[in-house]
Amino acid sequence: MATLPAPLNAPVRTLLGPGPSDIHPRVLAAMAQPTVGHLDPEYLRVMDELQSMLREVFRTKNRMTMAISGTGSAGQEAMVLNVVEPGEAVLVCINGVFGNRLADMAGRAGGQVTKLERPWGEVFEPAEVKEALARVKPKVVAMVMAETSTGAWQPVEEIAAAAREAGAMLILDTVTALGGIPVEIDKWQVDAVYSGSQKCLGCPPGLAPISLSDRAVEKILARREKVRSWYLDVSLLASYWGSDRVYHHTAPINMTYALHEALRLVLEEGLEECFARHRRNHLALRAGLAAIGIDYATQAGHELPQLNAVRVPEGVDDVAVRKKLLERFGIEIGAGLGVFKGKVWRIGLMGYSSRESNVLVLLAALEQLLAEQGHTFSPGAAVAAANEMYRSPI
Amino acid sequence: MATLPAPLNAPVRTLLGPGPSDIHPRVLAAMAQPTVGHLDPEYLRVMDELQSMLREVFRTKNRMTMAISGTGSAGQEAMVLNVVEPGEAVLVCINGVFGNRLADMAGRAGGQVTKLERPWGEVFEPAEVKEALARVKPKVVAMVMAETSTGAWQPVEEIAAAAREAGAMLILDTVTALGGIPVEIDKWQVDAVYSGSQKCLGCPPGLAPISLSDRAVEKILARREKVRSWYLDVSLLASYWGSDRVYHHTAPINMTYALHEALRLVLEEGLEECFARHRRNHLALRAGLAAIGIDYATQAGHELPQLNAVRVPEGVDDVAVRKKLLERFGIEIGAGLGVFKGKVWRIGLMGYSSRESNVLVLLAALEQLLAEQGHTFSPGAAVAAANEMYRSPI
Repeated sequence: MATLPAPLNAPVRTLLGPGPSDIHPRVLAAMAQPTVGHLDPEYLRVMDELQSMLREVFRTKNRMTMAISGTGSAGQEAMVLNVVEPGEAVLVCINGVFGNRLADMAGRAGGQVTKLERPWGEVFEPAEVKEALARVKPKVVAMVMAETSTGAWQPVEEIAAAAREAGAMLILDTVTALGGIPVEIDKWQVDAVYSGSQKCLGCPPGLAPISLSDRAVEKILARREKVRSWYLDVSLLASYWGSDRVYHHTAPINMTYALHEALRLVLEEGLEECFARHRRNHLALRAGLAAIGIDYATQAGHELPQLNAVRVPEGVDDVAVRKKLLERFGIEIGAGLGVFKGKVWRIGLMGYSSRESNVLVLLAALEQLLAEQGHTFSPGAAVAAANEMYRSPI
Repeated sequence: MATLPAPLNAPVRTLLGPGPSDIHPRVLAAMAQPTVGHLDPEYLRVMDELQSMLREVFRTKNRMTMAISGTGSAGQEAMVLNVVEPGEAVLVCINGVFGNRLADMAGRAGGQVTKLERPWGEVFEPAEVKEALARVKPKVVAMVMAETSTGAWQPVEEIAAAAREAGAMLILDTVTALGGIPVEIDKWQVDAVYSGSQKCLGCPPGLAPISLSDRAVEKILARREKVRSWYLDVSLLASYWGSDRVYHHTAPINMTYALHEALRLVLEEGLEECFARHRRNHLALRAGLAAIGIDYATQAGHELPQLNAVRVPEGVDDVAVRKKLLERFGIEIGAGLGVFKGKVWRIGLMGYSSRESNVLVLLAALEQLLAEQGHTFSPGAAVAAANEMYRSPI
């Protein structure tokens, strides 16, 4: 070609957006280990270990627990395409981008979709879902536990029980939830769950952990019509991830290495300790932001610790602040999507990004940039408030 | 969990199977560079460069040239699901595993599939495809250029012209072809092509380069029914890979780094030089195998240089030889699939694996193991024949 592009020279960022999050050096090092064949006995052992660790983080005994060879959205579509059969009634709870996407996917799967909607930033009450269950009589209910577009933490347990009582299967989105807040697949009896590697698990994007209950697998194996995707067909994937090891597709070997090490880091720390760390850094960030007049856009009491959706202060230029954060400090935070565009910042404190030093430098940088923008506050207030929170006993 | 798995300790292999192939250290190093956000200006530049380099290797000017966020099979399904509309007649040429898979996928896409079959190892003649085109009047024809299960090199040009003349779009599988033998998308006027990162491009598995002609894109944008996969919907992917940069899904950042460096390596060497290297190592391997009585399972004159499907000699234990190659020498070669199971070995010399030293060590190791198995030949004959080939002028 005319001119060959220069060698890659990736900048070092601090990733405090909606994902990907910062990657621990151990994970990057694991990913760069030598590639082996996808049927190599050593690789099959790595897959087994990966499945065991995924069962730990999902808190499930589900045999069908594995990683889909694609990003979180591929896991999302895999669960919808497998669980929903053409013509079935599907109830989708929508309060942000990812609920909408579930509805779109369910339609492509051939489902008869009924949308239950809530304004962005709010969560669903069990009563309204129960009412919809009685009205729609769905075979499948789909819901987002941690809405990445709004920072809303949806309580799951009661709605999961209601869905089960109504004879529906529950598909649960835990892309941003898993590893950051408690996800209890067996306790809540969730039938199909998916996540992504690049949020609170702290692995680069490219794999989608999923888990299916036995009854969901039975439903899939008894389908009248083939799943509308060969690549995502769980009945085929099961033979590769199961003891048969039947060749399906060539697994993304090095991505699997990365997720293996990322899960080892999470379990080394301990799930409860990991949740507590996410919570503590969230509280410090929140105290710091409050001290300089920045509020949450999410329904009070339902703010996700790992994804802080906050209002851009009046008179402050959204784009300019994010651009300077990136260029001057190497810090990425997320823009608002949809109705939140230009009005909301999404500050992720996920996985390895959820660190005290990240919270402090972000607050210090924001103080500098917001002062430039004419936003008024007591200088040093954000950092002082966060530091006070960190000094307090856990 | 009870016990945390030990840290990953991937063995160093020589990958001479049907893929993945060996990964150049520069590619592994690029993959381990710091993860950035998928909308980071630096990442968007990397995507642009990746698209330019993919256009070079596909030899196309197609604007819609990019990498699907999944393995080769995801690229395959993306092309089928986007180009085939429910109810359309689809003609699929099948002479191995991957043709069969195309037919399966076309059925899931809602196509009315007619299979044109050839025994494994053979290729299609233009005349028989023309006859089928006249009979079936398909809207779409799908065909594999380099059948990984049989090592057959299918000539494309005349069949592509016939398909176009008959008003059908051609979907071409170049998973094992791209980077190993000439692929001429614009010259042949192929409408939809897909490949994989882990074969002759020498990148770990996890990305699927694709390219679509303008008329294929027009067909996709004019579909009456949505593509049956949101994740693989080209009309949505176009907005992210195009100048709009509309968020679709979180791209597999570090895999993109790897493919960027792998493509740089291919273009640094030069495509023609790369093909010549694949050819030369193939001829040496072939001479060596012939000298110890090992024949090809592929139709004469149509053997792929990068994927050598050869017959397991009479009386030799297929599994034992492959097991010892792996355990004693760290060399992986591929087993036969389907009708070739137990009867054929698939020896890949793809990308960075296609090296003189790999050919020589494989032949030497085979001599050792085949002698153990009681296979008779003149000791040293394989290596001598290969060396003679390497000494001859190019």
